[in-house]
Amino acid sequence: MHIPALLEAIHTEVSEAVPHGAPADYIPALAGVDTTKFGIAVADIDGTVTGVGDWETPFSLQSISKVFTLAMVLARDEESLWDRVGKEPSGNPFNSLVQLENEAGIPRNPFINAGAMVTTDHLASIVGDAAAELLTFLRAESGNLAVRVDTEVRDSEITQSDRNLALAHFMASYGNMRNPVVTVADQYVRQCAIMMSCRDVALSGLFLARHGMRADGSRLLTRSQAKRLNAIMLTCGTYDAAGEFAYRVGVPAKSGVGGGILAVIPGRCTICVWSPGLDTHGNSVRGVAALDRFTTLTGWSVF
Amino acid sequence: MHIPALLEAIHTEVSEAVPHGAPADYIPALAGVDTTKFGIAVADIDGTVTGVGDWETPFSLQSISKVFTLAMVLARDEESLWDRVGKEPSGNPFNSLVQLENEAGIPRNPFINAGAMVTTDHLASIVGDAAAELLTFLRAESGNLAVRVDTEVRDSEITQSDRNLALAHFMASYGNMRNPVVTVADQYVRQCAIMMSCRDVALSGLFLARHGMRADGSRLLTRSQAKRLNAIMLTCGTYDAAGEFAYRVGVPAKSGVGGGILAVIPGRCTICVWSPGLDTHGNSVRGVAALDRFTTLTGWSVF
Amino acid sequence: MHIPALLEAIHTEVSEAVPHGAPADYIPALAGVDTTKFGIAVADIDGTVTGVGDWETPFSLQSISKVFTLAMVLARDEESLWDRVGKEPSGNPFNSLVQLENEAGIPRNPFINAGAMVTTDHLASIVGDAAAELLTFLRAESGNLAVRVDTEVRDSEITQSDRNLALAHFMASYGNMRNPVVTVADQYVRQCAIMMSCRDVALSGLFLARHGMRADGSRLLTRSQAKRLNAIMLTCGTYDAAGEFAYRVGVPAKSGVGGGILAVIPGRCTICVWSPGLDTHGNSVRGVAALDRFTTLTGWSVF
Amino acid sequence: MHIPALLEAIHTEVSEAVPHGAPADYIPALAGVDTTKFGIAVADIDGTVTGVGDWETPFSLQSISKVFTLAMVLARDEESLWDRVGKEPSGNPFNSLVQLENEAGIPRNPFINAGAMVTTDHLASIVGDAAAELLTFLRAESGNLAVRVDTEVRDSEITQSDRNLALAHFMASYGNMRNPVVTVADQYVRQCAIMMSCRDVALSGLFLARHGMRADGSRLLTRSQAKRLNAIMLTCGTYDAAGEFAYRVGVPAKSGVGGGILAVIPGRCTICVWSPGLDTHGNSVRGVAALDRFTTLTGWSVF
Repeated sequence: MHIPALLEAIHTEVSEAVPHGAPADYIPALAGVDTTKFGIAVADIDGTVTGVGDWETPFSLQSISKVFTLAMVLARDEESLWDRVGKEPSGNPFNSLVQLENEAGIPRNPFINAGAMVTTDHLASIVGDAAAELLTFLRAESGNLAVRVDTEVRDSEITQSDRNLALAHFMASYGNMRNPVVTVADQYVRQCAIMMSCRDVALSGLFLARHGMRADGSRLLTRSQAKRLNAIMLTCGTYDAAGEFAYRVGVPAKSGVGGGILAVIPGRCTICVWSPGLDTHGNSVRGVAALDRFTTLTGWSVF
Repeated sequence: MHIPALLEAIHTEVSEAVPHGAPADYIPALAGVDTTKFGIAVADIDGTVTGVGDWETPFSLQSISKVFTLAMVLARDEESLWDRVGKEPSGNPFNSLVQLENEAGIPRNPFINAGAMVTTDHLASIVGDAAAELLTFLRAESGNLAVRVDTEVRDSEITQSDRNLALAHFMASYGNMRNPVVTVADQYVRQCAIMMSCRDVALSGLFLARHGMRADGSRLLTRSQAKRLNAIMLTCGTYDAAGEFAYRVGVPAKSGVGGGILAVIPGRCTICVWSPGLDTHGNSVRGVAALDRFTTLTGWSVF
Repeated sequence: MHIPALLEAIHTEVSEAVPHGAPADYIPALAGVDTTKFGIAVADIDGTVTGVGDWETPFSLQSISKVFTLAMVLARDEESLWDRVGKEPSGNPFNSLVQLENEAGIPRNPFINAGAMVTTDHLASIVGDAAAELLTFLRAESGNLAVRVDTEVRDSEITQSDRNLALAHFMASYGNMRNPVVTVADQYVRQCAIMMSCRDVALSGLFLARHGMRADGSRLLTRSQAKRLNAIMLTCGTYDAAGEFAYRVGVPAKSGVGGGILAVIPGRCTICVWSPGLDTHGNSVRGVAALDRFTTLTGWSVF
Repeated sequence: MHIPALLEAIHTEVSEAVPHGAPADYIPALAGVDTTKFGIAVADIDGTVTGVGDWETPFSLQSISKVFTLAMVLARDEESLWDRVGKEPSGNPFNSLVQLENEAGIPRNPFINAGAMVTTDHLASIVGDAAAELLTFLRAESGNLAVRVDTEVRDSEITQSDRNLALAHFMASYGNMRNPVVTVADQYVRQCAIMMSCRDVALSGLFLARHGMRADGSRLLTRSQAKRLNAIMLTCGTYDAAGEFAYRVGVPAKSGVGGGILAVIPGRCTICVWSPGLDTHGNSVRGVAALDRFTTLTGWSVF
């Protein structure tokens, strides 16, 4: 398999055949993103990265950050987290309060917004500033010290944070928030506003393809934890379209409303695609199409 | 890996460490099952079967039958089925009407009861008697002509069928039932009441591990369809505990309230475990524990 | 207050100012009703009836029948009914299954379809044929022996009965159905298909304005029971628009999708209006407008 | 009817027959209230007040305040309020988020917490400080200048305000909050923490029995508005037990978790009862029992 040629072919085919869609409009700073941007990067487990298109342009990480925050909690305090958040697919749009109310303030999984705030809160109780800890990790794994929080996006999200504040206060009313709501919301928004390129993200996620090993050869997660994190990505990683994504693409992945998707082929590689136009579920239209082509052409599904 | 010894070890360990639980009590004929029964069978993709414990004792297939019915529809008329049923995890207990009402009579996936009835209805429109077609298939794949419908279980379920009739009439009210409700309910109950042993089930499911190829070497499903069916099993196969199961065990599987679970290691083998005691989600307590041990000891997860 | 002149004025004003709307379209035999029909009748507690427009034309009673069925149960066996059905407004559209599932098969009140079927089932257990008993009562109170079941409407509803069958089987699955589903559904459909004019309905409901006394001076309900039935009409009588109706009109009332509404001014009179065009909640557009005018002009609200 | 003797008889009978129950435990400052306190006051439309038991002891107004806030909005700007809040019974517990999510941030009625916060927000936009305006009104109507906000209760509620903050932020995310969440929450908590006696409350609510006229003879509400406010109290005034209360008692009323209930007999009088022990719906156990006896003995139901 000659990956560079493959990526070129997929990039050309998807660019021609798939309309780019419209970006997230509820975050003002994201609404203005150039919708023709489209990049793909593949990172081999040996650390080699190959890319095509806008694969070195930073974009807003958004919910992809949840994978890394969760990994950092699993590495430090796995068991107690699972008393505060479930592992089941949500079956409802990603910011639903209904489920939270039916289930006494325990979010369905760590990738819906409520569950991600619990995870951030959990990490904050261990390390103080979850977003700062995340930045340190992402810079180390990507080898890119320029990875940073976009303050314009952060400020833009803060003005749109009523729903997340509602979720956080609601969980607090059930006793499922350890730090002040305002602290958690601040760290959560900052982690979502991190800017990284496809290259950076693919490299940073390699521990998931390497059964838990970091870039420097140290272990972040046990083999079992890495497997489990991949399982959560497969069942919960693409909002309420996780079933369709598993059916169509068949690999663990996590998407963000910035238009990025991080996918994992355990034992082989990671892939990060980015195109800002989203489908109705909040997943990148061209990103899903590119991953679909990639797994079809390589035959690299987990099934 | 010496499978027979492995199975012996798992059988002994789980028998000693894991309480057997209580069988399904809402189907009178199942409530009387001997809860100490416990069998495991592994079928290699070359057709070799190895077993331990009560692996040759027939048990009530129940929801495991849904995998085979779905496969038979996919083999005949894949696309039109997906207009009538979704592919998303349900996020709710397996017989919920709420979701059906919110989503205009389209069940969330083919493995919840409503979705399975739609699938049976779909197959019935093509072949006439879906349960008879299923029997023919299962006898051929297992090589066991004694595979049959247990009429006592069938009759027992018919007396408890109000909820399924409610689901079917409700879907009919949305125009999502092609055959008369009573016809579909009859075929559905008969397919659930099929009796098979772990050996039979493991052999019958081998097409899922063989990328779509049947026992006689003919193709039932395309490679892509087989992959997709495995994806649905992983995301939806163990009721509303699919996330937990993927997290813990990490392979495609389908459980039934008869206490059986069929699991698939694509490219390698199928495993069928049976123990009638169920957890609160309706999955076999010892069955899940045995599969957990099996994937841990072999390292054969899809992640 | 000169009622005949008042009714003429209201009939004219509403006919000119209020569009007649469209009839219920899910029951084929109702879909063809002449939408320009519009009648009003007022029955004084002394038994005098005054009418205007199409007040003597029979129309399909539909859900107005639920008031009479409930009254007949209250007269015979009040307490045990309330173990099977609640008294709270539904807050959801009139045929919702969600609430039924959340509340273990106990319908919210006797006027939503599920609750009305429980009430019919309850009456059937006492008298055998609930619809026949109802007919006898309505003929006696209205003095019109021609009150009858419209077999065309009945047959038309039977072909559209999947949703009601779903509700009934669902309640049966919770043990909240005493007679076979098919028996209850048949009696329920027949009671809904009764044909009566505004005159007939206003007279038949007079016991509600007369604190429980029937036309012949005998007592159907105790004073307390009559008060309570009026309370249920006020809080639950106009589907999920009961709050708006109470706010706007302010009297106990029960509507039906045939376009009729029976309203009660305790101690004074009953009013029955009929116009087949319905609003989005299933209440007669002109019927609500006419009652609004009537209570405004007379000042006869309960508040 | 000799009211003083009647009240004595009811007070004695209910004290003996009805257990006093437990007070609201989620507001620390209310949890310590003396559960044996029990007062009743009746205010005639001519302004005469009669009382029994602890009728002159101030208690925490809590949700009864919502009636007065709503009245003050109706008096100033009726129509635009109804674009922001509905008039339908909630059918769910009083602080549910589910309904709010299903209905795009529009609370079901002005008496559930979410709806009351919208009403407070609406009044704040007109008068600045809704709670201060309310105090001025209540002091004028009761003639008691000592009516005040209990700062201990207010502070106690603020520490328990996560759920209300969640509701307010959630509505803000739908654009249904005009003032900052923190401002509205502060005013809302202060209005709930007002201390008044049965005497004060009965007098302050007299405008509802006097078709809109205040104590000084000026008009607060039109006749139609007063009728409508009574209608909302009847359908929505006692949380999710409004149907049962209408059935059993049959008059407009509003309860609070401080243990008070204000009831209205239009054209006759108001009644305020207070006993801190609550039933599972949040209504005073002895308060409901006393009102039930009162309407039964006087025959003063609206039905």
